[in-house]
Amino acid sequence: MAYLQSMPKNETIKLREKHIGAACQLFFRSSPLKIVRGVAQFMYDETGERYLDCINNVAHVGHCHPHVVEAGRNQMSLISTNNRYLHDELVILAERLVKTLPEPLSVCFFVNSGSEANDLALRLARIHTKNKDVITLDHAYHGHLTSMIDVSPYKLNLPGGPEKPEWVHVAPVPDVYRGKYTYPKDSTSEEELGLMYADEVGKLCKEAKDKNGGVCAFIAESLQSCGGQIIPPDGYLKKVFEYVREADGVCIADEVQVGFGRVGSHMWAFETQDVVPDIVTMGKPMGNGHPVAAVVTTPEIAKSFADTGVEYFNTYGGNPVSCAIANAVLDVIEEERLMERAARVGNHLLSRCEDLKHRHRLVGDVRGRGLFVGVELVTDRETRTPATAEAKHIVNRMRDEKILISRDGPDSNVLKFKPPMVFTTQDADRLVDTLDRVLGELDGDSIAVPKLTLEVRVTPISDDSSSDKLRNTMQQSVKAT
Amino acid sequence: MAYLQSMPKNETIKLREKHIGAACQLFFRSSPLKIVRGVAQFMYDETGERYLDCINNVAHVGHCHPHVVEAGRNQMSLISTNNRYLHDELVILAERLVKTLPEPLSVCFFVNSGSEANDLALRLARIHTKNKDVITLDHAYHGHLTSMIDVSPYKLNLPGGPEKPEWVHVAPVPDVYRGKYTYPKDSTSEEELGLMYADEVGKLCKEAKDKNGGVCAFIAESLQSCGGQIIPPDGYLKKVFEYVREADGVCIADEVQVGFGRVGSHMWAFETQDVVPDIVTMGKPMGNGHPVAAVVTTPEIAKSFADTGVEYFNTYGGNPVSCAIANAVLDVIEEERLMERAARVGNHLLSRCEDLKHRHRLVGDVRGRGLFVGVELVTDRETRTPATAEAKHIVNRMRDEKILISRDGPDSNVLKFKPPMVFTTQDADRLVDTLDRVLGELDGDSIAVPKLTLEVRVTPISDDSSSDKLRNTMQQSVKAT
Repeated sequence: MAYLQSMPKNETIKLREKHIGAACQLFFRSSPLKIVRGVAQFMYDETGERYLDCINNVAHVGHCHPHVVEAGRNQMSLISTNNRYLHDELVILAERLVKTLPEPLSVCFFVNSGSEANDLALRLARIHTKNKDVITLDHAYHGHLTSMIDVSPYKLNLPGGPEKPEWVHVAPVPDVYRGKYTYPKDSTSEEELGLMYADEVGKLCKEAKDKNGGVCAFIAESLQSCGGQIIPPDGYLKKVFEYVREADGVCIADEVQVGFGRVGSHMWAFETQDVVPDIVTMGKPMGNGHPVAAVVTTPEIAKSFADTGVEYFNTYGGNPVSCAIANAVLDVIEEERLMERAARVGNHLLSRCEDLKHRHRLVGDVRGRGLFVGVELVTDRETRTPATAEAKHIVNRMRDEKILISRDGPDSNVLKFKPPMVFTTQDADRLVDTLDRVLGELDGDSIAVPKLTLEVRVTPISDDSSSDKLRNTMQQSVKAT
Repeated sequence: MAYLQSMPKNETIKLREKHIGAACQLFFRSSPLKIVRGVAQFMYDETGERYLDCINNVAHVGHCHPHVVEAGRNQMSLISTNNRYLHDELVILAERLVKTLPEPLSVCFFVNSGSEANDLALRLARIHTKNKDVITLDHAYHGHLTSMIDVSPYKLNLPGGPEKPEWVHVAPVPDVYRGKYTYPKDSTSEEELGLMYADEVGKLCKEAKDKNGGVCAFIAESLQSCGGQIIPPDGYLKKVFEYVREADGVCIADEVQVGFGRVGSHMWAFETQDVVPDIVTMGKPMGNGHPVAAVVTTPEIAKSFADTGVEYFNTYGGNPVSCAIANAVLDVIEEERLMERAARVGNHLLSRCEDLKHRHRLVGDVRGRGLFVGVELVTDRETRTPATAEAKHIVNRMRDEKILISRDGPDSNVLKFKPPMVFTTQDADRLVDTLDRVLGELDGDSIAVPKLTLEVRVTPISDDSSSDKLRNTMQQSVKAT
């Protein structure tokens, strides 16, 4: 069934080339998709072809969820004005968000995008600490704004990228598969690897404190997404936060990509590391596609901001429509028990991907939490050489199979899965079965990989955050082969 | 008739105090309004009390316009994904916006707020010119982001405000009533005053070029809003743009507040100055309350940006819902001929306000274009001393009369009118009649002001942008008294 279009696809492409900045890139550039419909975990092109969406963490509760659409429509027809007027949707949303967060995180600021949220977070940190030095992780991405590119090595590292400001300090990303310290080369203890990485942040804190009197902030995604679906070793953030606070800095957890229950075990990904940040930023899934985002912080930091006497006014931030939509998203997460689903389906997806490792030598590492999963492809498991070209090929082949996945990481060799939270075990099976077949095309036929060269790192969902978890699961995985 | 609330107003206030940053200020802080409904130019509180909205330039085509609501609802239920996929609403919006702009402004970037738009505009300018120095106007406000506060003296000038970066240069605002050069003290020729103010920018350009090799950008609202509804003298921007371009800089017209036909005579306020900027930013009215904004620039500047090889990705920027809503706003502007209405009703409002000057000595200056009008209050017409307390009193008194106006300018003594564009002559009459009465309470009774002390500066709407217009209207006004 073909859908109604305003113009044929080649016309859309022509107009886009003429009037949209070329810096705005298309997926599948040589043959881009025209997407005209979305329902739950599926998107449809103009010919009616259906795609399984394994990428879109923005359409959190499913594309076009009727409860969210209804909430938007209702509020749009009642009033949408700015937050200089009182409105119930605003305060209800604030109260509900605060209830999901540990104390003392209880003061909200509403904005329109994750970038705006991170910008405000850094501004709060700067005003509160009066320090300037910011510590960020390598390959991190925190937004498209000037202030965010400054702290985003994902952009700074590019050949045409801007220069890193001197007040930004880059710590190695805690990637135990291809990072500075890896398993099992540098240690076979997750805790030890976590400390090694945390000490790198500690060193930067000490330098900043010695040189400039203190640190402004440490900013990191609780699980790094653009960096290649990185799951930090247990204990990492706990030690990092200690170092940052010793240097008078505040800790910012960027939950824009990974928040709102995606990790399955918790509402916020930082909770998997058993820490309490000073500032939390949230965005993408918050409005299921509607531009709404937020910063939540402590009364103390909010007071420092108010004490400057400078008003913070964000025209659309906290408008009743954005808030009503965000409230509806929270309704659906609760009513459809989407966190439980993310845990259940995510575990299934992880273990099925894990199985791929035994069948295809390209699969170097499988990692994830809930419906945030990465499959890292390597051409050689000893050297862990990134299989960039193969990853690209696979993303394109999966598209032929009507499954949308993407790839990321500094070498673009990590297949990323972060589907809408309504993803089912059947969807996971279809995804992995198809991936299995496509991987098979690359390695000729299924292979039995010698036991000793296997690199295993899976962090399945569980409420158990003991530091031995990784080691245990590694042992289990090795046993299973 | 009372409206349905989720909680009584005092509960809303309590929750807000607890969970919303105190830096987010309320209108009428001691007794804030709870607004639950909006229709056209009216807003309703929870008791059903109706207010005439003379402030909200965001609800451009009227609160909750059914055509806009319908467009949002329809698209929300079809698909809202990111602009890495092709979508007709995106390219149609781009083409329609470009058609309203002079050549060579033809390449669009879609974002979520005016702040994001101005941030991107400066980034484009920096990449294109490779220069750093930015010239901004005193009292200017360009957004709440870190990068925008840097170029917003409206915030920098505050006691608790941040420090101005050394690469930011502040030119005097071309305010011929209370600025650096005034009528008639410094000149009775509008053209001459325009040149005097432009020369100030020229001086800064020369300094930046001598010191650092060139200018990055000149950024200004085409008519300064936060600075106190300032209408620059004819010829001002033309000469400024010459100076900036001689110093290799680009000219950014911030149309976030004043664009989309508000000035009545033209779609964009910069057109009243007969110039073509290199970059135009637009926001607020664009989505009638929905978070959508844009940057439009030349193919040359867009190419410099793309040539860096760094992708520009904005999660919600250019999503089909935002674009469908913006297209619907354009539909209404066209179908309801709102520009013509802004011209007609704006002229009526201006001339009625002008009349207040003859009746109340507090009214020092009346100025405006279309439905962008300012009434500057002074305690003394000779010294032009700002009547700040009186302005505050009047805004509160007008609220008692169920009319919402605001005040602005560095001394908060300028009454601001920028109502939804569906404002009628009857609304204008009610606004001015009530203001007349409230002003009367302050000056005891109506007064006849001696002819010679009258300061007259009205710029009525007309397609005639001859440099003699101001002088002519001044003469007419003086004759009329």
